[in-house]
Amino acid sequence: MSKILRINTRTREYRFEEMGKYAGLGGRALTSRVVLDEVPATCHPLSAANKLVMAGGILAGSTAANSGRTSVGAKSPLTGGIKESNVGGQFAHKLPRLGLLAIIFEDKPEAGAPFVNVLVKKDSVEFLDASDIAGKPNYAAHDLVKARYGEKVVTAMIGPAGEQCLMASTIQFSDPDGRPSRSAGRGGMGAVMGSKKIKAVILDPEAKEAVDMADPEKFKVARKRWVDILMGHPVTSQGLPTYGTAILVNIINEVGALPTKNFRFGRFDGASKISGEAMTETIKARKGQYKHGCHTGCVIQCSQVYNDKDGNYLTTGFEYETIWGFGANLLIDDLDDIAMMDRLCDEAGMDTIEMANTIAMSMEGGVIPWGDSKAAIGLLKKVGTADPLGRILGNGTVFTAQAFGVDRVPVVKRQALPAYDPRTIKGVGVTYATTPMGADHTAGYAVCQNVLKVGGDVPAMGKEGQIEISKNLQVATAAVDSLGLCLFVAFAVLDTPDALQVIADLVTSATGKLTTIDDIVNIGVNALKDELAFNAAAGFTSKDDQLPDFFKTEPLPPHNTTWDFSTEELQAAKV
Amino acid sequence: MSKILRINTRTREYRFEEMGKYAGLGGRALTSRVVLDEVPATCHPLSAANKLVMAGGILAGSTAANSGRTSVGAKSPLTGGIKESNVGGQFAHKLPRLGLLAIIFEDKPEAGAPFVNVLVKKDSVEFLDASDIAGKPNYAAHDLVKARYGEKVVTAMIGPAGEQCLMASTIQFSDPDGRPSRSAGRGGMGAVMGSKKIKAVILDPEAKEAVDMADPEKFKVARKRWVDILMGHPVTSQGLPTYGTAILVNIINEVGALPTKNFRFGRFDGASKISGEAMTETIKARKGQYKHGCHTGCVIQCSQVYNDKDGNYLTTGFEYETIWGFGANLLIDDLDDIAMMDRLCDEAGMDTIEMANTIAMSMEGGVIPWGDSKAAIGLLKKVGTADPLGRILGNGTVFTAQAFGVDRVPVVKRQALPAYDPRTIKGVGVTYATTPMGADHTAGYAVCQNVLKVGGDVPAMGKEGQIEISKNLQVATAAVDSLGLCLFVAFAVLDTPDALQVIADLVTSATGKLTTIDDIVNIGVNALKDELAFNAAAGFTSKDDQLPDFFKTEPLPPHNTTWDFSTEELQAAKV
Repeated sequence: MSKILRINTRTREYRFEEMGKYAGLGGRALTSRVVLDEVPATCHPLSAANKLVMAGGILAGSTAANSGRTSVGAKSPLTGGIKESNVGGQFAHKLPRLGLLAIIFEDKPEAGAPFVNVLVKKDSVEFLDASDIAGKPNYAAHDLVKARYGEKVVTAMIGPAGEQCLMASTIQFSDPDGRPSRSAGRGGMGAVMGSKKIKAVILDPEAKEAVDMADPEKFKVARKRWVDILMGHPVTSQGLPTYGTAILVNIINEVGALPTKNFRFGRFDGASKISGEAMTETIKARKGQYKHGCHTGCVIQCSQVYNDKDGNYLTTGFEYETIWGFGANLLIDDLDDIAMMDRLCDEAGMDTIEMANTIAMSMEGGVIPWGDSKAAIGLLKKVGTADPLGRILGNGTVFTAQAFGVDRVPVVKRQALPAYDPRTIKGVGVTYATTPMGADHTAGYAVCQNVLKVGGDVPAMGKEGQIEISKNLQVATAAVDSLGLCLFVAFAVLDTPDALQVIADLVTSATGKLTTIDDIVNIGVNALKDELAFNAAAGFTSKDDQLPDFFKTEPLPPHNTTWDFSTEELQAAKV
Repeated sequence: MSKILRINTRTREYRFEEMGKYAGLGGRALTSRVVLDEVPATCHPLSAANKLVMAGGILAGSTAANSGRTSVGAKSPLTGGIKESNVGGQFAHKLPRLGLLAIIFEDKPEAGAPFVNVLVKKDSVEFLDASDIAGKPNYAAHDLVKARYGEKVVTAMIGPAGEQCLMASTIQFSDPDGRPSRSAGRGGMGAVMGSKKIKAVILDPEAKEAVDMADPEKFKVARKRWVDILMGHPVTSQGLPTYGTAILVNIINEVGALPTKNFRFGRFDGASKISGEAMTETIKARKGQYKHGCHTGCVIQCSQVYNDKDGNYLTTGFEYETIWGFGANLLIDDLDDIAMMDRLCDEAGMDTIEMANTIAMSMEGGVIPWGDSKAAIGLLKKVGTADPLGRILGNGTVFTAQAFGVDRVPVVKRQALPAYDPRTIKGVGVTYATTPMGADHTAGYAVCQNVLKVGGDVPAMGKEGQIEISKNLQVATAAVDSLGLCLFVAFAVLDTPDALQVIADLVTSATGKLTTIDDIVNIGVNALKDELAFNAAAGFTSKDDQLPDFFKTEPLPPHNTTWDFSTEELQAAKV
């Protein structure tokens, strides 16, 4: 039976606890419940009262394809609301091999306390000096960790941005190649970890406890069908493996919803130069890798290894949203420079979506010129240093906008908007506005029905049907995040009649608890209800469920659409 | 009849409008009504949709003592809610001599537009090049304005902090000595003016239109009694004129409610060195002035001229809250250094309460040591410069705390707390929590009944009676602010049985509209209702009516009191 490891970061006491009242939960459902139950909603996110929760999903440790995602939960320093930041990497695969489903970090050390590494073993926790690793960017720091604790360590680490408790800071999780490349990106989870003075959480590489399935035979059958489903859909078997998520650059540009120059236009002249097609061509020419998994058990392989001009490793997990943000939205069309920005974000530990919007604010504010990729790189390099400009930028979009007097600030609940203009893809706008997470495309990816025509066909620019698809997707996503599945399974699930039953079979045979499709849905509904309850207690109201005014008043070329959902209408998208 | 001047800062069109639906309103009641009616509550405070309103009170232009206060209203960049920032100086005295009660600044110029001075004459408005004045600190800028437009100009001006649209920025109003010394301090009104690219509003020094009273004889009688009331109370006739508001340093320290080292202690060892008594002694020795009015018609004269060691002018309007904030709260006991910090705030145009708390955050965050007054001066000098650290600091307490990872942040609605610890003076804590303005002692100064025993005796440390006195004071203050009276008249009014009737008589005889005591009260109630309505529309809820958690969990020495009002209890303090 999986346990929860509870660690007090001040006293260094720890306990391996039974699941108790949290039994049956996993992933996002678990982190959100813990945050709701244990974190005072009005606390300062960097105070001792906040908690940082890392959890595998209900299927964590199983051999079900794409079931290795990790949920990171806390009260968000960025939004002031609850946060579940979802990430790939090896963490959730390893945790069950320590007999664990989750770790809860509580309290915080005295001011001025040094950073430590927390080494988690099967029955013990060690607090190890990290003073020589603190301050180092993630790749170098991770090399030091590997040298010290073993090449096969599985880690969750913060970079200099997290150490400084900056609001755009990530927690970087190690990937199957032993790189700290996978970002729990959104909402400043790195700052919460930084406030607790943890440089890295290290899972004992020697841990190998068997993870037994309750009904191994039934699980095997379901698991086989599950792989067939994923491999039977063109998006998960062809589009994503070949071009990564960057396949969307050309698609969204064609639709006219690729936010350009801080959400002023829906198409970017340089789109083809930063497209997934261009990326894959470049990767091939430089002998990188365009099919690559971010965690053990991934069959979709949407990641890649992107090398520089000289054929040396530059970055991985080079996502559409990153390419959009540092590309079209800044009027930059140099893919190598964008890749460098992606790498710099992984190095300091910064959310690429938040930072891309942040750099847009610096361009709006006249700090650097539009389209100047070298200047943008220069700004990103400042984050995590002693330069006060780095502290401004590292605190994200709202913060940087205010620092430079900018009033066109594309955020919901103080979190920056991702790569789909909500005026022209309205379903995802409903999600931005209403998810408890703040603007987040992954929380209810209506691009499926609006653009990709997966799981239905709801015209992108009309209002009809948008509330319904966003709500359903928000529930489905919360369930997927709670199971520990990769969100991209949704493409196949939405188009495959027996997929939900197969997932239910996976859970039933893995856990031994009879689980129906309704149960799966309820996992999602309940997670969302927990999150909404926390936000309400923190002071959020329907007024916070809305896009900034400029989306209502400025038509987006080429379709000259505006955002036209009232706050009242949007409430129907919430569970 | 007074008019409203409405100026479009982008098109430079302007209109002199009849009061219309705003007839009968003045001061805070007028600015808050205009903001409620005309500013979309969800707009970005620095966007074209926000408006900046400057208004005299209902008694503006009359010869009633202490009736020359100006209200400045807008959606606040600092709090995100409505703001009325109340200020002395000559502005509201001059406006009626132009036939005006208020000016509304609308829209904003294109990005990159230069700063202008707006010269307001009897029947026209001129937009004058301010490019050689922009960027200059207020005193030097004001000298240039005087040289250009006449020694007797009456101005409202922003410093470099306002030009940069920083959230702690003030609008500085000229005093009777022709200095830009009076601050519309709280809530970042300077940033709103800066966003509209106005360096200074200049009222034509030649304007001398007569301001007629409806019933001159009755007014004369009431006016005489009004002066007698003010001169008959020891606080307004002796305490304030002799020691200024700094008389409170020793009093509040004795009570044990002088916030020390970022609200950690209630007493400060160095209090006597920064007391009102020490200040007045210093002023006398250096041939300054300890009885001084901030606007024509002031009989209380709580201001002063504070000279430096060499007898040269250093600052004026040197308030208790400033001395507390840069003194006790930073562990600084050098009055000259505190005076220099006051001057620097007036120069860049920064709110002293917000900036004092901001410097406390920089000390918490390890940027400079506690008690280091020279380092604090060094930080203040950065605001308004190109140094990014200045942009952090100038954006105030919450912003600076976040930049440096500080979690003990004494704010309500993102506005920093003033000089009275709410754990030991609970009545003022109720005001901090519940006024629509964000933490603000002037919005309901329960220090009267809790400490000074003016207007009643409600023990400071108990819960009993606090809600009631705060609510009543909030109403009374809103009325006083709407009449254009100085808040300090309240000391005398609260203790003088016929005072409210005399105020009603002043209004009746000045305006010709029969005004009862109930009418006066209703002016306050209605202003508050307008403000609460705006905040509700902007997304504020009862959850925002609370002090930060650390006041509830950390007892304050020497009395070891904690804050113990629930959010639900506090709702009763709202109209």
